[in-house]
Amino acid sequence: MDYFSGYISALIEQLSQLPGIGTKTAQRLAFHIVSQPEEKAKRLAGSILEARKNVRYCKECCTLTDAEICPICSNSRRDKQTIMVVETPRDLAAYEKTGKYEGVYHVLHGAISPMLGIGPDDIRLRELMKRLAGDVKEVIIATNSSLEGETTAMYISKLIKPTGIKVTRIASGVPVGGDLENIDEVTLLRALEGRTQL
Amino acid sequence: MDYFSGYISALIEQLSQLPGIGTKTAQRLAFHIVSQPEEKAKRLAGSILEARKNVRYCKECCTLTDAEICPICSNSRRDKQTIMVVETPRDLAAYEKTGKYEGVYHVLHGAISPMLGIGPDDIRLRELMKRLAGDVKEVIIATNSSLEGETTAMYISKLIKPTGIKVTRIASGVPVGGDLENIDEVTLLRALEGRTQL
Repeated sequence: MDYFSGYISALIEQLSQLPGIGTKTAQRLAFHIVSQPEEKAKRLAGSILEARKNVRYCKECCTLTDAEICPICSNSRRDKQTIMVVETPRDLAAYEKTGKYEGVYHVLHGAISPMLGIGPDDIRLRELMKRLAGDVKEVIIATNSSLEGETTAMYISKLIKPTGIKVTRIASGVPVGGDLENIDEVTLLRALEGRTQL
Repeated sequence: MDYFSGYISALIEQLSQLPGIGTKTAQRLAFHIVSQPEEKAKRLAGSILEARKNVRYCKECCTLTDAEICPICSNSRRDKQTIMVVETPRDLAAYEKTGKYEGVYHVLHGAISPMLGIGPDDIRLRELMKRLAGDVKEVIIATNSSLEGETTAMYISKLIKPTGIKVTRIASGVPVGGDLENIDEVTLLRALEGRTQL
C-alpha cells in the first residue's frame, strides 16, 4: 500500500483494528478524516483520548461511566431491589431506551464461554454476588440468547438459587413484527414452549 | 443518552459523524475503544492527528500523499504520457491493486453533480488541463459509471477533444464472475452495446 501516504496507511491500519471495520471501510474512513478540516480530526482524536482517560467502572453496577457511581445507580427513584444482569453497557442502553424498566443493572462485561476460555472469574460475577448480600428481591437475567448467554444465565441462576432471591430470565420468542417464515427453528420452538394463555 | 458517561456520549457523537457509521456502530466502536488499554486509544488518536497533519495533495496528480510529489508520480518507471482520471484516491488504489497499469493518475476529488451543486470548478479539473499542456498521449477516463461519473466523463472528453489528445473511457459491462440474472438492465444493455467480436 505504498501508493498511499505512510501516514494514511498507518491510519487505515489503526482503523481496521476496530471491530467490524474491514480494510475497505477503514480506507473510506481514513480518506474522509484527512479530507476534513483539521479541527474536525482534532475533535475526533480528542474525544477518543478524553473518553478513554475518564471512563471507569461504576462501583455499584460495573457499567462504564465517568463518575464513581453511574447516573442510574445514583438515581434515588430507581428500584434498587431489582437488578437486571446484562452482558454489556450496550445491552443496558437498549433496555434504558424502552424507558419502562425502573430497576438497576449489573453489567457482566462478557459471558461465560468455555470455547473462548472465558470462565466465571473473567466476568463481573463476583461483584454481582456481593451486591446480593444487600436488600435484593429479584435478579432478572438478560444475557443474550446465544449459547454463551444461555450458559451464563444457567450458571448465575444456580449460583443465586441458594440465597432464596427470586431469579428470572427475560422471555425468548418471536420478535414483535417478525415474520414467522424468516425465524429460525430454535426461536420458533422457544416461542411454542413459552406460550401463554389468552 | 445520559445513562452513558458524558465522555462516551461525546465519543459516540463524534464517531457517528463518520460516513457509513450509524449510532449503533458508533456505540460498538466507542465501547471497544474505552475498554482497550489506554495505549491503544492513544495510538488510534495519534494516527488520526498525524495523518491529518501530514497529508497534502500531490503537486502532479492531486492524490493525497505526504510528500510534494506522490510515490507514483515520482516513479521514473511509470509512463507519464498516459493519465488515468479517477474520482478519488480509493479508485486510484483499486487500479494500483491490479498491478498492471503503468501510467500515472489524476485524482479529481469528486465528480460533476448538478444535483449536489458540484460544478467543473469544484473538482481538480483545472489541474488536469494544465498537465495536458505537457507531453501527454492518452487520457483514460475512469470515473464511476454513475450518473455523476458519466457526466464528468462526457464533460472532460469534450474539454480535451480540441487538444487532439486521445481520450478513452474504461469499458462498462458485466463484471467478471457476475450472474446475468442479478445484473441491472442498464449494465446489460451497456454490455450488449460494447460487445466485441470473438
